[in-house]
Amino acid sequence: MEKKKYNVAVVGATGLVGGTFLKVLAEEKFPINKLVLLASEKSKGKKIMFEGKEYEVQVLDENSFDGMDLALFSAGASVSKIYAPIAESKGCLVIDNSSCFRQDADKALIVPEVNAFDADPKLGYARIIANPNCSTIQSIVPLKPLDDKYGLKRVVYTTYQAVSGSGMKGILDLEKTLRGEENTFYPYKIAETCIPEIDVALDNGYTKEEMKMVNETRKMLHRPDLKVAATCVRVPVRNSHAVSIQVELEKPFEIEDVRKLLADYEGIVVVDDLKNHKYPVAQLSNGNNLVYVGRIRRDLSCDNGLLLYTVSDNIRKGAASNAVQIAEYMDKQGWIK
Amino acid sequence: MEKKKYNVAVVGATGLVGGTFLKVLAEEKFPINKLVLLASEKSKGKKIMFEGKEYEVQVLDENSFDGMDLALFSAGASVSKIYAPIAESKGCLVIDNSSCFRQDADKALIVPEVNAFDADPKLGYARIIANPNCSTIQSIVPLKPLDDKYGLKRVVYTTYQAVSGSGMKGILDLEKTLRGEENTFYPYKIAETCIPEIDVALDNGYTKEEMKMVNETRKMLHRPDLKVAATCVRVPVRNSHAVSIQVELEKPFEIEDVRKLLADYEGIVVVDDLKNHKYPVAQLSNGNNLVYVGRIRRDLSCDNGLLLYTVSDNIRKGAASNAVQIAEYMDKQGWIK
Repeated sequence: MEKKKYNVAVVGATGLVGGTFLKVLAEEKFPINKLVLLASEKSKGKKIMFEGKEYEVQVLDENSFDGMDLALFSAGASVSKIYAPIAESKGCLVIDNSSCFRQDADKALIVPEVNAFDADPKLGYARIIANPNCSTIQSIVPLKPLDDKYGLKRVVYTTYQAVSGSGMKGILDLEKTLRGEENTFYPYKIAETCIPEIDVALDNGYTKEEMKMVNETRKMLHRPDLKVAATCVRVPVRNSHAVSIQVELEKPFEIEDVRKLLADYEGIVVVDDLKNHKYPVAQLSNGNNLVYVGRIRRDLSCDNGLLLYTVSDNIRKGAASNAVQIAEYMDKQGWIK
Repeated sequence: MEKKKYNVAVVGATGLVGGTFLKVLAEEKFPINKLVLLASEKSKGKKIMFEGKEYEVQVLDENSFDGMDLALFSAGASVSKIYAPIAESKGCLVIDNSSCFRQDADKALIVPEVNAFDADPKLGYARIIANPNCSTIQSIVPLKPLDDKYGLKRVVYTTYQAVSGSGMKGILDLEKTLRGEENTFYPYKIAETCIPEIDVALDNGYTKEEMKMVNETRKMLHRPDLKVAATCVRVPVRNSHAVSIQVELEKPFEIEDVRKLLADYEGIVVVDDLKNHKYPVAQLSNGNNLVYVGRIRRDLSCDNGLLLYTVSDNIRKGAASNAVQIAEYMDKQGWIK
């Protein structure tokens, strides 16, 4: 049987995540028949190389998805809100990196290692799949086997988020402020400080980013009442987020069992030998699709408490690679077209 | 009555904290009669200005403290271990910034806003007062009024620690790695990553820095059984530490009452207006002696849970200024000589 090939549209192709969609599609040899690169008016005519061939960026409009099978979106929630339903109406499967649809009851939110089963068409979800928040993706991968084996009782996240999470604007603001120039994107010179504000402020004193972590964790684990809190902080690191994760488990555990459980889980690399300076750092994760987990130890402040520290490339596993992995899973199941 | 003046020795005068001792002593117009600057052999003869007068650095030896009333130490635990008892034996009051004596049962560990009462000679402590760990100082200031009013049940710290906490070596390693040069101090290029390792690794999977936060919190609050855990992470910020603090309180609280309680407490500035991008950042704290507290909100993951985020200049309030504040308190009480 011949392998299916797909007509693929990339929306936001000139952005940081968009460019990484292309890199990962090529690395993974995703079966592409026709590739269409879409962006806003200001990128019109821009040329982008893919697999040795030059593609001209086209302006996104209502007709962009005619004849397309798969659309990968990363152009912000406002673009997704308008164009993802149009793509869907044209019979295209959409995987959307924005936060637009993540909490919609009729749309699945997926990290393949964790809840690929939610992509099953029998469940009746829309043909728009939401790609989760970057920090949540790298956290939920180790949390899933812990929940399955020991039962999660409570989760508290404290993040160290790289500037690439804000796209090119974040990277440029770090570079500018490192040169001593004024900040033009973040509210303070990010080269000189951590900034405990990511995405907009909400009425409960949390940021939207923090509540994404709370709500997306609950949705993907199918634990709507799970107790979760988060503190999200931007740090002057170029790429790869870190998350300090604190969990209370229902059942008692041995640290060695936890280490083995995580090391055996798909997508995770355990790096945990503190005495030899081995733990997750950006130098390990930059440029690949894995979640690095280390600093695995008991939380001294509660019974059955566990502390972890994860690092992952937020543009890859935290965004583009996870989306492509969803597409690969859908292809394997024969669910793209 | 004429104000007492003291013969003051500064040990480690050429270091980052040592230099800041001098800056703060001058700012505070601490009543100095004679000033002696001490360091190791390699700084011998170095000239340092203080209040318009030039001082020559002398090599630390057993006779350095003859005739001295007060010695401020910041030259590492190994130097303190040998020379602080010598200074004490010469009748000198020692305030030691190293971790050497902090857990000694016969020595007080003091943050003046929190437990100045522990400095009372009637309590029978040695005349060596330990200055606490940098991250613990800025955390314990807001924790004290919370403990007094609501009762602390559990504390979890997650830190963002600046490279100046490692002294000049840390700052130079950040600068080097920002220029793309190899790291020579930290185990990884700190310009490119956070590093979840501060001080040496212990057998329980924690670092010594993390256990300092646990043990020093208990000691200063006189709560030897308080449940505390910590994760300490170095970040590529030049100066000022941040700490995300999660507390469970015994009694229920209103957020507005907590905000007022903290704002009214000595040494704290509450900066907490997320919607207008007001929260603690290094730009606020660098160069002063205050503890900035913000992101005050409920911990959604437990009853009577509270989340805080503090920032303070780790070389000042986290080290030199706190030591000088202890000296000022001792002077005011007439307890130096």
